[in-house]
Formats: sequence, C-alpha cells, structure tokens
Amino acid sequence: MTDGVSGRTASYGDTVLLVSKDRKSYVRTLSPGGDLTTHLGTIRFDDLCGQPYGSAIRTHLDHLFYLLIPQVTDLIAHARHETAIMQPKDLGYVALKLGVRPGAQVIEAGTGSGALTLTLAMLVGDQGHVYSYERKAALQDVAARNLKRAGVAHRVSFHARDIAEGLEQAGVDALFLDVPNPWDYLVQARAALSGGAAFGAIVPTINQLIQLVDAMYTGPWFMIEVEELLLRAYKLTQVRIRPDDQMVGHTGFLVFARAVNRSASRSGEAEPGQP
Amino acid sequence: MTDGVSGRTASYGDTVLLVSKDRKSYVRTLSPGGDLTTHLGTIRFDDLCGQPYGSAIRTHLDHLFYLLIPQVTDLIAHARHETAIMQPKDLGYVALKLGVRPGAQVIEAGTGSGALTLTLAMLVGDQGHVYSYERKAALQDVAARNLKRAGVAHRVSFHARDIAEGLEQAGVDALFLDVPNPWDYLVQARAALSGGAAFGAIVPTINQLIQLVDAMYTGPWFMIEVEELLLRAYKLTQVRIRPDDQMVGHTGFLVFARAVNRSASRSGEAEPGQP
Amino acid sequence: MTDGVSGRTASYGDTVLLVSKDRKSYVRTLSPGGDLTTHLGTIRFDDLCGQPYGSAIRTHLDHLFYLLIPQVTDLIAHARHETAIMQPKDLGYVALKLGVRPGAQVIEAGTGSGALTLTLAMLVGDQGHVYSYERKAALQDVAARNLKRAGVAHRVSFHARDIAEGLEQAGVDALFLDVPNPWDYLVQARAALSGGAAFGAIVPTINQLIQLVDAMYTGPWFMIEVEELLLRAYKLTQVRIRPDDQMVGHTGFLVFARAVNRSASRSGEAEPGQP
Amino acid sequence: MTDGVSGRTASYGDTVLLVSKDRKSYVRTLSPGGDLTTHLGTIRFDDLCGQPYGSAIRTHLDHLFYLLIPQVTDLIAHARHETAIMQPKDLGYVALKLGVRPGAQVIEAGTGSGALTLTLAMLVGDQGHVYSYERKAALQDVAARNLKRAGVAHRVSFHARDIAEGLEQAGVDALFLDVPNPWDYLVQARAALSGGAAFGAIVPTINQLIQLVDAMYTGPWFMIEVEELLLRAYKLTQVRIRPDDQMVGHTGFLVFARAVNRSASRSGEAEPGQP
Repeated sequence: MTDGVSGRTASYGDTVLLVSKDRKSYVRTLSPGGDLTTHLGTIRFDDLCGQPYGSAIRTHLDHLFYLLIPQVTDLIAHARHETAIMQPKDLGYVALKLGVRPGAQVIEAGTGSGALTLTLAMLVGDQGHVYSYERKAALQDVAARNLKRAGVAHRVSFHARDIAEGLEQAGVDALFLDVPNPWDYLVQARAALSGGAAFGAIVPTINQLIQLVDAMYTGPWFMIEVEELLLRAYKLTQVRIRPDDQMVGHTGFLVFARAVNRSASRSGEAEPGQP
Repeated sequence: MTDGVSGRTASYGDTVLLVSKDRKSYVRTLSPGGDLTTHLGTIRFDDLCGQPYGSAIRTHLDHLFYLLIPQVTDLIAHARHETAIMQPKDLGYVALKLGVRPGAQVIEAGTGSGALTLTLAMLVGDQGHVYSYERKAALQDVAARNLKRAGVAHRVSFHARDIAEGLEQAGVDALFLDVPNPWDYLVQARAALSGGAAFGAIVPTINQLIQLVDAMYTGPWFMIEVEELLLRAYKLTQVRIRPDDQMVGHTGFLVFARAVNRSASRSGEAEPGQP
Repeated sequence: MTDGVSGRTASYGDTVLLVSKDRKSYVRTLSPGGDLTTHLGTIRFDDLCGQPYGSAIRTHLDHLFYLLIPQVTDLIAHARHETAIMQPKDLGYVALKLGVRPGAQVIEAGTGSGALTLTLAMLVGDQGHVYSYERKAALQDVAARNLKRAGVAHRVSFHARDIAEGLEQAGVDALFLDVPNPWDYLVQARAALSGGAAFGAIVPTINQLIQLVDAMYTGPWFMIEVEELLLRAYKLTQVRIRPDDQMVGHTGFLVFARAVNRSASRSGEAEPGQP
Repeated sequence: MTDGVSGRTASYGDTVLLVSKDRKSYVRTLSPGGDLTTHLGTIRFDDLCGQPYGSAIRTHLDHLFYLLIPQVTDLIAHARHETAIMQPKDLGYVALKLGVRPGAQVIEAGTGSGALTLTLAMLVGDQGHVYSYERKAALQDVAARNLKRAGVAHRVSFHARDIAEGLEQAGVDALFLDVPNPWDYLVQARAALSGGAAFGAIVPTINQLIQLVDAMYTGPWFMIEVEELLLRAYKLTQVRIRPDDQMVGHTGFLVFARAVNRSASRSGEAEPGQP
C-alpha cells in the first residue's frame, strides 16, 4: 500500500513484498530481467508482472510465495539502518499525537534510520512536506533510498546540518526531535512551529527525560505529556496462542507538548509548561 | 490540526480547543455571539476571532486559557460516546499497520464510538474514503457529529446495517472489524478487500481471540499477527516524574493479516494462514 | 495459613477469612458469642468453631459463605492502612531477592502500612526476627495489630524513631528501605548489614531512583539492580477471560544490591557499585 | 543467605558466590585444595576460608572478585536446567499467594528445573516439607543437586511418577501444578489439599488457561484468580538509567484458587468456582 505501486497487478517499477510460507520476506523493486533467489528457489520478475497482488507464486523449485504490496512497517523492517530504529508501536502513535495528516508540514531531527521520515512522508501526501535534519549526511542517504522505494522521496527535503544553527522553516504544523540532547534545541523548535502546534520528542534514559521536561517547564510549552508504549506480540501455532517469550522492553520515553505564546504571561503567574 | 480549521488565526466556523491552566479542556466551534462559560469565567468567541493559535486568552475573571487547534486525540477525548472507545494507543498503530494513507479506500465495521472513523477520515484525505458499517444508526449520528466538527464528514459514508448481508464495496485497501463476532464476517471481509490488502480486528477476550484466529487459519489470510499495546503514562509534578498509579490494562487484542488468493494452493500443502 | 490458626478446624482465637459467593470477604478473630453481620445475613462464631476450614457456611438468611484461613495477602488486603501500601506483587519478590527465610534477621524502615512487616514476620519463623523502624509511632500501632491477628507479633521489634540516628542491630541478613530519602541512610544501612548481605529499597519517582543509584555507586554496594514488576490481573466471567480494564501502573522502582567491604579497593580502580 | 553456609566467614563446605567486577558470577562449593579459574585468573579456595563474606578477593592476576553468599535467585540463575525455568518474578509471588511459610507442607508437580522446589524448600524450613512429583527422574537429579548445594535437600521428597495415579499426601497446606495439562489432575489436587488450602498453577498458552479455568469452575474451587507478572529490569551505566531493551514478555499465566468443600452446595445454586 505504498505510493510506489501503480495498480492492482504488479508492474515493472513496483516495489513489492514477497513472503514465503515460512514467513521469510523480501522487498524488491521489479525490473525487467531481474529475479529473487532464495533458499527456496528463484522467482523471475518478468513472471510477476501482470499478476494480481495477493497471488500465490511458485519458485522454480515449486515453493509457494505470496506477492504483496509492502506496508510502511514492512519497508521499515527491511530498511538498512545504522542507528537505533524507531519502532512501529511508536511511529503510529507519534504521527497521531502530532496530528500528521494530508497537507501537513512537519520537521524532524535527526533523520536517523529514516523510519519516522518514511512514516511521515506517507501520511502528509503530495500536498504536505517533511523537512528532515541530520548532521550525518550518510544516514540521510539510507533514508532517501527507502523513501524512493516507497515512491515518496519528493515529499521530503533533507538538511545535512546541526539544528543548533536553527531551522529553515517557520509555521510548521508539527516537529519531532530524536536527538540525544533535545533540551538544547527547544528555542529553535518553538521558532519553527506555528502557534499551538504539536511538539514531540523521544529519549531513551530517565536522566534525559528529567532534563528535557525540566527545560520545557519554564518555556513556551503547554500540556506536557510523558508516555511510553509497550508492544506485546503473541506467538501462534496451529492450536495454541501465547505471548512471545521476549518483548521489546524499551525504545524510549515519548514527550509531547503544544507550542504556545508566552507574551501574555504575567509575572507571578504559573508558567505555561506546568501541567 | 484538524481540517476544520481555516488558518493560523481563529475564525468563525473553526473548531477550537480551549485549555485552562489547570488542564480543563473544551472543544467548541466558534459562532458569532457565542461564548464558553466555565468555573474560571467566560470567554467570548467574538474576542477569539483573529487571535493566533497558541495565544494565551483571558476570561472575564482574568484566568488564563490557551487557544489551540484540536488534534484527533483531543476530539476523541471530548467526543460523546456510548460504547467502549478505541484508544489513541491503538488508533495510530492500527492506521499504520493497515497502511492507511492519503487516497486510501477503507472499510470499518462497526462504527461504534467513531474514534477510528475519525482517525481514518483524517488520514485518507480528500482523495480517499471511509465506509463505515454499523447496525445501530444512533451510534452513527454521534460519529457523524464528531466528523463534522473535524471538517471531514464528506470523506465518510455510513451504512446502517449488519455486515452479515455483505459489504457494498470491493477492492478496498484496508478493512477493520470491531464487532463481537468477527469470525462470522471473514468471507465478506475477504470479498471487499483487494488482493494482498490489509485486514485488522480488535477483540477484548482471549476466547474471541482463539475463535477468530482459528477461523482465519484455514482461510485466505496470510501473515496473521496478534499484538497488544500497553500505554504507560507518567505523572509530572514540578520536581518529580513517575509513572501513573493506574494504567489501562487492556482494551483489546489486535489481529492483523493480509488478504491472499487461495486458488494456487494445492492439496496436501500447508494453509495460507499458518504463520 | 497464618500462624494465628491452631488446626484444621476453626477454634476460638483463630483469625479466619469469610468470603461470600459474590466475593465480599471479611477477616475476623473468633470470640465466644461474637458474630459477623453482613448484607447477606449473620454468621455466629459459636457455630463456626469445630467446622473444618474450606466448609460452606450458611448465614441466618441462608446465604453461602466459605470459611477459610487468611493468607498474608488477605490480611494485607484487609489491614487498616494510612500510607501507600506495598503490593503483593512486590512483597513476594522483595522477600525472595533479600533471601528472607526461616531464621533470618531482617531490618525494615519505615514500617509504613506494615504490609512488608507482616510478610517478613511470616517468613522468618520463630527462629528469625524483624526489626522495624518508623518515626510515626501511630503507624506502628496499626502494623502491630495486623501482626497480632496473624499470630506473629512476637517476631517483630518496633523502633519508633528516625534511622538517621543509626540502627541498633548489626550483622543482619537483609535490610529494606521504604522511605522518601533512602540515600541519606546508606551508611547506617551498611553498618547494620553483615558482609555480602542483601539490601533493598523502593522509590516511586525516577528522580529518587537516580539520586539513590548515584549515591550507591561510590559506596560499599555491589551488583546494583533496578527492577519493576507489573501485575496484570484477568477478569473471569462464565465463558470469557480477559485482562482487567485497569491495572496498577506503578507502585515503585525496586533497587537491590549486596553490601560489600571496600577496604580492599585500591586507588584508581573502579568502584564496587559499578555494574 | 542459603542454609548451606555455616557462618559469617567462608568455610570448607560452604556454597559461595564469586562475582568479578565485570559481573561474571560463579557458584562453587569450597573444598580443600580446590580453585576457581576464570579469564581473570585463579582464586584458591584455601585462601577463601576464613575470609568474611562481602570481602574483596584478588585472583593471581590481581583482578577483583567479591566473596558472597548465594541467594536462591543466584542458585536458580546458575542451576543446570533442562526445561523452561520458572522465573524469580513468579517464584516469590507464587510462594506468597500459596502462603508458604516455615512449617508448611507443600506439593509441587512437576519438579521441572527445580527452581520452585528450591524456593519452597528454603521457605518451609526444617519443620516444613516439600513433596515434588515428576515423571522424568533425570530432571529430579538436577533439582536434587541444586537443593544439596543450598543445604536444604533433606526438606524435599521426590516422587518419580505421574500424578495421574494420585498423590501420596493428604491435608497439605498448598499445591502447585506446573504441567501441560493441569485440568486432568484437579481431583487428585483437591484430595491432597486440606480444606481451604491454596492451589496454584502456571500455564503458558491462553488455550490452556481457558481449559484449566473451565475445569475449575464446576469443581471444589473458590476465589479463582488469573494473573501475570511482567518484570522490567533497568540498565545502569555511570550516568544513565534506562529500561532494558529486551524484557521477558511471558513465562506463563498464574492461576490461584482455594480448595473448598462442595457438599454443602445445594442444587440450583451457583457453583463454588464462580467468581
């Protein structure tokens, strides 16, 4: 269901998801003459073109695969990444809390593995835009490749620099910080956001959490919230269902707030950030 | 950040969020001559028009409120609802897993409290559409009112009938079931989905979970996943941060799968649904 | 199964648990001529004496109750308490991590609601002993009453004073701090513990957690661990099982360590506390 | 703090815990002439004898270890085990819910890895006793070795047979089932328990959970409870604290109940098991 797919049947240029019966999955962009070779045999891309999505496909060794359209979560799971990755459990919730929707203008810093970049780019549509800042240009190359696969590269502008120097946009609808020291960029973040717009951040340690919340308390932030999501996946076998033995115990603490105008505040009155 | 807001300053017709310093919040649509009266005093809507969002506003008793644009999560929190409500923790994740994006065609049944309806309507944009089925027409009236507030009512078609009779759409991109007996509607669901498209459901009990997964195992479903999200919120006071004493322990088990074509399956071979 | 019960049949002086079919429960000590009067009718204690535990009992209105021996968890649930109570999920784990067993000498501060006091007193047996410190003497009266009910009051010595002045015992097997500022009493705690013995503490906020762990890092503590337990209870109805809607999101962070001797440490070498 | 240690200083025959500064740990029983050889050098047991517990010890390569008394949790962590192991988070809670205390008579089936056997044996003291049933005699050999290390082997009797044939004890204070099909042994379990005594079980899948609870509903069981414990461990580094990336997502569902007498039940009245 990415925007890198043209129709209900597979065509050259489509980015597809191929999954074997034993749940090994592969994301590939269909090119003339190309193929996928796995331990279960080879699938020729020329044979895939014209097949409806959802079809069962046979390798030359007669093993079964399904031909699917990759979701954002599939692309993220298959993306090359060199930093800790934001997880689907957090991505959907962050997008919802930031009010990301078709037409929205959104800033994120840093780009990191590009998982949030991709999620935001899918959701803002062609009328919206994502501005992604990252000091390490190499990380943005990885993110750009994933966006291109999903057909949404044109919705994202990359800035390869430190946000300490400020953000080039103003009046954006939402902003998300995934950096080690978000408290250092709150002034820049507020300057880029339109009045009342949504701020979000993720930090892994409780020390960072305290430092960020402390910094926000006295600034132009309101309705500060700290939340965490735990995802519990279940293991299915023919006759039994049980929670997985292992679960992700932690990715990060999520911090949300609204950008407000402090000018109306009077001396002696409580600060905006206070819950 | 709903689509029911026209610009960066408040105007008549905007649906706004007004929040006091002690975090009491109100969602109102601005009408000429209207006002909001609370225990902290009155705010006249005529005074709000022309004010930038994010502004601090004074009641006639000189108490401070902030003028904000409601997010989907705010609208849901303030919506009238008469059934159990899907929670933001699940809404964002469900939308992500279903691949909902601008332009998508999505079916949901039942409408229920309309929380998912609203989330989907925000995300599909003007090029997409949501088809919402519910036997109880009264529930759909509540949902429709919330959609209107958010300015996205035109993106949703309501069907006030039982989905046992079948679904009127075909080839949709995603479908979600929030009904007590989803296993009874799997045939209808598969018929409405395009090949490879995303199916989701939510069930509160482990008995329902077993019944649903059992029914899907032998059907045209692949990559069946069962997951649960736990949201942990933190309490902030001036100098202290701690998890809330109480948390939501459970809303429901989420079930996801892809709709596939079984025709290629051969006798003696494992069924599509098997993980 | 408390030590306040003399045999397999109920006798005067026994502390019993009476539970109605609708799961209302009552803890009472049987006295001649006494009774329990509830909305379901009256049970005379004279009629209970001689009945085997596990028996179904009828009120004068012919409603059914079961006659049971209260567990520690029942006594805690029914105890009067005036402060936040340590929960069963933490009590069993704390006792295990502290190595509490028959014959152990254990210190706790503060007494608080007495839930841990009771748990420890049950586990150390008549050969062990619990020393419980609390500044507020009134709290200790409540705890003492609960211990008496359970028949284990003789295993506990109360000290009604601040532990800043030091602890009267030395060479104890385990020590647990449930106070707002445990970092202030680490010297006293180490002095009271035998070499290698187990230290534990509970703190509700992440700010306290950081302060405590920081203080332990440079002291005579080793194998510092921070853990949290979440209890998920399930709701049972005739045909359905599901997690409870609400769960306890947080009681406190548990900190454990072993008391070690720092004298052998050499300058330039890492501190004992470091993980 | 096991009962396999004679005093405050290490002696031949003591089972000790040796932990290096990088937190590698070793459980050994001290024998004349014996030693521990690790990547950090050798520690001779003859040098340990007479050392106070809690002491810092040097290897022949001058690396630091601490000399400690192993807790039950350490012994479990180091025990050889060939089956899934019950975890400390569950062990302490199970012991508490079952009311295990000095002098208690407790049955468990199966022995499994012996983690619960060891926990129970520590808690019942020399006046209590544990009866452990397991069909696979080889598993009991492992458990017996661990008990011997802890100095509590004399408190446990092993029965190497299927409990379908019945249990040899009657009137015990508590009974715990850790077998794949606990519903098949409810009659035997009730027969062995004294009136009102505590029953517990652990099952990994929701299918087993439903089957067990269904079977208990119509039997002589009361106050049926289903619970689960999630343990969240935190990672400590010099300046940072954060939850571990991974956590144990599931070991099993815990089921508790009280054994009651059904004879007083009358036709047409609700069954004892009903909550």
